[in-house]
Amino acid sequence: METHEINNLFTVNNLWILIATALVFIMHLGFATLEAGLTRSKNTVNILFKNSIIPAIGLLIYAIVGFNLMYPGIKFAGGVFGFSGFGIGTDNAGLSPLYNGKYTYWTDFLFQGMFAATAATIVSGAVAERIKLSSYLVFSVIFLAVAYPVVGMWKWGGGFLDTLGFYDFAGSTIVHSVGGWGALTGVIYLGARKGKYAKGKIHPIPGHNISLAVIGVFLLWFGWFGFNGGSVLSANPTKVSLVFVTTSLAASAGGVGAMIISWGFLKKPDLTMVLNGILIGLVAITAGADLFDPNEAMIIGFIAGVTVVYSVIFFDKIKLDDPVGALSVHLIGGIFGTLAVGILGEKAGWHQFKIQLIGVFSVAAFILPFTALLWGVLKKTIGIRVSEEEEYYGLDVGEHGMESYPDFEKVS
Amino acid sequence: METHEINNLFTVNNLWILIATALVFIMHLGFATLEAGLTRSKNTVNILFKNSIIPAIGLLIYAIVGFNLMYPGIKFAGGVFGFSGFGIGTDNAGLSPLYNGKYTYWTDFLFQGMFAATAATIVSGAVAERIKLSSYLVFSVIFLAVAYPVVGMWKWGGGFLDTLGFYDFAGSTIVHSVGGWGALTGVIYLGARKGKYAKGKIHPIPGHNISLAVIGVFLLWFGWFGFNGGSVLSANPTKVSLVFVTTSLAASAGGVGAMIISWGFLKKPDLTMVLNGILIGLVAITAGADLFDPNEAMIIGFIAGVTVVYSVIFFDKIKLDDPVGALSVHLIGGIFGTLAVGILGEKAGWHQFKIQLIGVFSVAAFILPFTALLWGVLKKTIGIRVSEEEEYYGLDVGEHGMESYPDFEKVS
Amino acid sequence: METHEINNLFTVNNLWILIATALVFIMHLGFATLEAGLTRSKNTVNILFKNSIIPAIGLLIYAIVGFNLMYPGIKFAGGVFGFSGFGIGTDNAGLSPLYNGKYTYWTDFLFQGMFAATAATIVSGAVAERIKLSSYLVFSVIFLAVAYPVVGMWKWGGGFLDTLGFYDFAGSTIVHSVGGWGALTGVIYLGARKGKYAKGKIHPIPGHNISLAVIGVFLLWFGWFGFNGGSVLSANPTKVSLVFVTTSLAASAGGVGAMIISWGFLKKPDLTMVLNGILIGLVAITAGADLFDPNEAMIIGFIAGVTVVYSVIFFDKIKLDDPVGALSVHLIGGIFGTLAVGILGEKAGWHQFKIQLIGVFSVAAFILPFTALLWGVLKKTIGIRVSEEEEYYGLDVGEHGMESYPDFEKVS
Repeated sequence: METHEINNLFTVNNLWILIATALVFIMHLGFATLEAGLTRSKNTVNILFKNSIIPAIGLLIYAIVGFNLMYPGIKFAGGVFGFSGFGIGTDNAGLSPLYNGKYTYWTDFLFQGMFAATAATIVSGAVAERIKLSSYLVFSVIFLAVAYPVVGMWKWGGGFLDTLGFYDFAGSTIVHSVGGWGALTGVIYLGARKGKYAKGKIHPIPGHNISLAVIGVFLLWFGWFGFNGGSVLSANPTKVSLVFVTTSLAASAGGVGAMIISWGFLKKPDLTMVLNGILIGLVAITAGADLFDPNEAMIIGFIAGVTVVYSVIFFDKIKLDDPVGALSVHLIGGIFGTLAVGILGEKAGWHQFKIQLIGVFSVAAFILPFTALLWGVLKKTIGIRVSEEEEYYGLDVGEHGMESYPDFEKVS
Repeated sequence: METHEINNLFTVNNLWILIATALVFIMHLGFATLEAGLTRSKNTVNILFKNSIIPAIGLLIYAIVGFNLMYPGIKFAGGVFGFSGFGIGTDNAGLSPLYNGKYTYWTDFLFQGMFAATAATIVSGAVAERIKLSSYLVFSVIFLAVAYPVVGMWKWGGGFLDTLGFYDFAGSTIVHSVGGWGALTGVIYLGARKGKYAKGKIHPIPGHNISLAVIGVFLLWFGWFGFNGGSVLSANPTKVSLVFVTTSLAASAGGVGAMIISWGFLKKPDLTMVLNGILIGLVAITAGADLFDPNEAMIIGFIAGVTVVYSVIFFDKIKLDDPVGALSVHLIGGIFGTLAVGILGEKAGWHQFKIQLIGVFSVAAFILPFTALLWGVLKKTIGIRVSEEEEYYGLDVGEHGMESYPDFEKVS
Repeated sequence: METHEINNLFTVNNLWILIATALVFIMHLGFATLEAGLTRSKNTVNILFKNSIIPAIGLLIYAIVGFNLMYPGIKFAGGVFGFSGFGIGTDNAGLSPLYNGKYTYWTDFLFQGMFAATAATIVSGAVAERIKLSSYLVFSVIFLAVAYPVVGMWKWGGGFLDTLGFYDFAGSTIVHSVGGWGALTGVIYLGARKGKYAKGKIHPIPGHNISLAVIGVFLLWFGWFGFNGGSVLSANPTKVSLVFVTTSLAASAGGVGAMIISWGFLKKPDLTMVLNGILIGLVAITAGADLFDPNEAMIIGFIAGVTVVYSVIFFDKIKLDDPVGALSVHLIGGIFGTLAVGILGEKAGWHQFKIQLIGVFSVAAFILPFTALLWGVLKKTIGIRVSEEEEYYGLDVGEHGMESYPDFEKVS
C-alpha cells in the first residue's frame, strides 16, 4: 500500500469517527428529552440539569483520568486494572497514521469520552424524581472516574475479558449493562417514588410530555448510527454499512414487537412501550451489530421488543420503581444482546455463549458491589433522597429554585 | 483508474450515502414534530405513535418485499412491474466495489428504505385527527409494500418512465406526489374534521404547539441535505455541493415567498405559511436539484412559496381538510417541481416538459385508483374513521388510553 | 502529489465542509429553541418567526451581495472594503480542484452563508419580546448585506486585519462579537421590557419552557462541531480532531464553571447559567480552537463559564435588558476568546495580544456606530418598539395574529 493511499484512507476514516463522535454527543440530548418527557413537569429542570452537566463532567473526568484507566499502557492483576497517568496529551505521532492507521489520538479520546458519559446518564433516568442532586453528581463522578473505565479496559483496553474471547462490539455490556447495574443498585437504595406503590397497588405516574420523549427516542436512534457505526473504528464500507442495517432493523423490529405485545396483552397500542421497544432493539443489537445478518438482526430486535413489555411490568411487580424503563432497556437489553452473540450470527456456539455469560457476570460482580457501596456511603453521609416535602412540590423548586414552565397559565 | 483509488473513493462515497441515510432518518422526527405541532394536543399521542412506528414498519417491509419490487432483477409488462424474491441478502460481491463503484448493497438498501417510509408519513399528516389507527396501519403496510416500490421502479428501478427520459432527481414525483395522491384520496374518503366546515364557514383549527412545528421544519431541511445530497449517489464534489446550494436556496426563497404573500394578502406574517413555504421549496427543488443554477433554484423556490399560500386556501375552499398542509406541500409542490424540470435548467424544453407531464399523470393514474380502492375497502370492512365521541375527546385516550401532557395543570 | 490523490482528498475535504455546513445550519434551530425557551409563551410565535426566516433571508442576501463583499476580487482603502459584483455563479473551474484543493465554489458559498445568518440571529435574542418585526427584519437585511460581510472581509477575505496578523479561527470576533455589538446597540435603543426594572428593582422574567432551551444548547454544541471543525477548511485529520477536542472541552469546562459559581454564589445550581456557561465556552474557544491544547481549552472554557455568571448579573445591574444572555455569551465571550489567543496557546505573546485587541476594537469601532445609526433611523421612521398594549398581550397576537399554544387549557 502506498503512502498516499494510507493518508487518504486515514483522512476519511478519521473523519467518520469524528462525525460518529458528534452523533454520540447528540444522544445526550436524546437521553435528556426522553427522561424529561417521561417524568413530571415539577422535576423537569432537575432532570435536564443532570443531563446537561453530565456530558460536561464526563468529558472532563475522561480527560483527566478515565482515558488512561481504560486504555492503559501498563496493566496489573491479569488485566483487571491498569493506568498510565493523569491528563491527556500527545506527541506528534499521536496525530498521524503512526498512532493508528484509522484515527488520531484526539479522535480516539473524544469518541471514547462521549461513550463514557452515556453510562452515567443511564443511571440518571432510573433514579429520577427523588434523588438529591449533590449525591447524584458525586456518584456520577466516581462512577465515571473508576467504574466505567475499569470495566471498559477489561474488553476494549485489552484486559482479561478481551483475552478470554468475550465479544461486545459497541457496548451492550461494557456501556449499557454497566449503566444498568448502577441504576439497579440506585433504585434499590433509593426506594420508589412516593405513591407509586401505595396501598399495595401499582399507580402509574405518567410523564408530562410525550412529544419530548419521542424526540428523545429518535435522537437516540440517530445517534446510534455513530455509536455502533463508529465502533467499526474505520469507514470500512462493508462493515459500516452492515452495522447501519442491523442497527436499524433491530430498532424497527423492537418497536414492532413491543407494539404487538402491548396491543394484544395490554389491549392498547402503548406509545411508551413502542419507544422502549425501539430502544431495547438498539441496545440488544449493539453487542454484535457487525456479526449478524439482517434476518438475525430482526429476530434479535423483535425478541427484545417483546421482552421489554414484560420486563417493565416485572420490575413494577417487584416494586423497583424506574420512571423511564432504564432497567428494562439498558440492563435487560444489554444482557440479552450480549448473550445473543453466542446464540446467533458469526460467533454463535456453546463455547462463545459461555464466554458471553462470563462477561455479563464479571461486570455484574464488579459494578453491583461497587455501586452498592457507593450508594450506601452516600446514604449514610450526605443522604441520597430529597425530603418528602421536596418530592411533593418537585425537585425543580427544591434543588434549583426554578420552574420548568412558569407561564403557561398566565399571559403576562 | 487504479485499484486503490477506486477503493478510496468507494470508501468516501459509501460513507456519504450512509451519512445521508442518517439524515433522511431524522426527517421522520421532523415529520413527527411538525404534524404533532400543527394538530391538537388531544391527538398528539396518536400522531406520534404513527410517526414512530411507520419508519420501523417501513424498513421491515422494505427489507421483506419493497427493495426487490423497486429494484427488480426481472421486469414485466414493459417495465411496469418486476420482482426478485423476498428478503434481502447478499454475497460478498454486494459488499465490494463489484456491486457498485459507489456504495455497498447494504447502503443501497438502507438509503432507499429510509425514503420509502417518508411516502407513508406524508399521508399521515393529511388524515390526522380522525383516522382509526388500525386502518391507517393497514393502509400504510399495503401502500409501502406495493404502491411505493412499484412506482419507484418505474423511474429508479429502470422501468418505463426511466426509459422514456422522465427526470426526477430525488423524488418530487416518485416520493412526494406518491404520498400526496395517497393523502388526497384519504382526505376525500375520510371527510373533514368535525366542525372544520360547520355552517358553511371555514373554522381554522390551530395546532397546539408551534415550537414543535418549527423543530419539525428545521429537521426536515436538515434531513433534506441527505435526501437530495445523497441522491447524487456518490460524494462527487461538484454535484453534491451544487445540490446543497440549490436545495438551500429553494427552501429560503420558498420561506420568503410565503412570508411576502401571507403578509400582503392575509395582512399578517403567518408563521405556519412560512414553514410551509420552506417545505414546498424543498419539495419543488427535489426533482431537479442537480439541474438548476442558484438563480433558477431561487425562482423555483419563490414560486413554490407563493403557491403554497394560495393552495392551502384553495383546499380549504373546496373543503378538503388537511390539518398540516400536506396536499399543498407534497402534492402541489411535487407536481410543480417535476414540471419545472421541463421549464428551467439543463433539461428545459417542450419535449422534456411533455415527458414530465406524462410522469406526473402516470403516477396519478396508478396511485389515485389504487389508494381509493384501498381506502374504500377499509371503509367497508374495519372502518376508517373514529367515532364522533372519540374525535371529540381525542384519539389519544380513544386509541391509546394515554394523554400527551397529563400533568400541566396539577403539581403532583 | 499525483492527480488521483488530489481528487480523492478533494472529495473527502469537500464532503466534510458540506457536512459541516449542515451542522452550522442546525445551529439555527438551536438558536430558535434556545431563544423561544428563555422567553415568554406570549412571544413564542414571534421569536420562532424571526429565527425561521433569518436563515432564509440570510442565505438569499449572501447569494445576492454578501459573498462578493466578503470575498472580493478587488479591495479598496487598504483592505477595508471590496466587492466583486452581484449574485453567485461560477465557471467549471470553481467546481474542480482548480478553485481550491479542498472544496468547490458552491461549498465555499454555502458554508460561509450559513455563518452569515448566525450574526443576525445573535441580535434577535437580545432584542426579543419588545421589538417590532418589521424593524427587526429591515435591520437584519442591512446588517447581513453590509455590516457582517465587510467585517468578515477584514479577516477572512484577506483584508487589513488579516494583513496585520489578527487571528480569529472561526469567528469569536468576526461572527460572535459582530452580532454582540449589534445586540448591544439594539438593547440600548429599545430599552428594557416593561416591568423588568420597575421601581428600582430587578424582576427576573423567567422563560416559558426550559426543555426548549436545553434542546437549543445541545443543538448549538452539536452544530459547533461544524462551525469550528469546518473552519479547518479541510478534513485534515490532525487539525479537525484537535478542534473537536478543544471545542468540547471548553464547552464542558464552561458548563462546570458556571455551575460552581452559580451554586456557590447564587446558592442554587442554576440551569440557565449552566446552559450559558456551555455556550460561552463554545464562543470563547472559537477564536483559537486550533491553537490550544486540551488543558488550555479547559482553562479558557472554565474562565468563560465563571465570567458568564457575573456578566449576566452585571448587565442586569446596568439595566441592559437581554432576555437570553446574548450579550454575555456572544459579546463578552467573543472578546475574551479573541484576547485569549494572545494569552495562551501557540500564538501567545504581548505582540499578538495587542493585535487581538486591535481586532476587537476595530470591529467595535465599525459595528457600534453603524448599528446605532441603523437603530436610530429605524426608531425615527417606522419605530422599533411595539406598543405597550402589544407588549402586554404579547407579540404573537400583535404581530402575527396567532398563539403559540392555543389549546393547552381546553380539550376540544
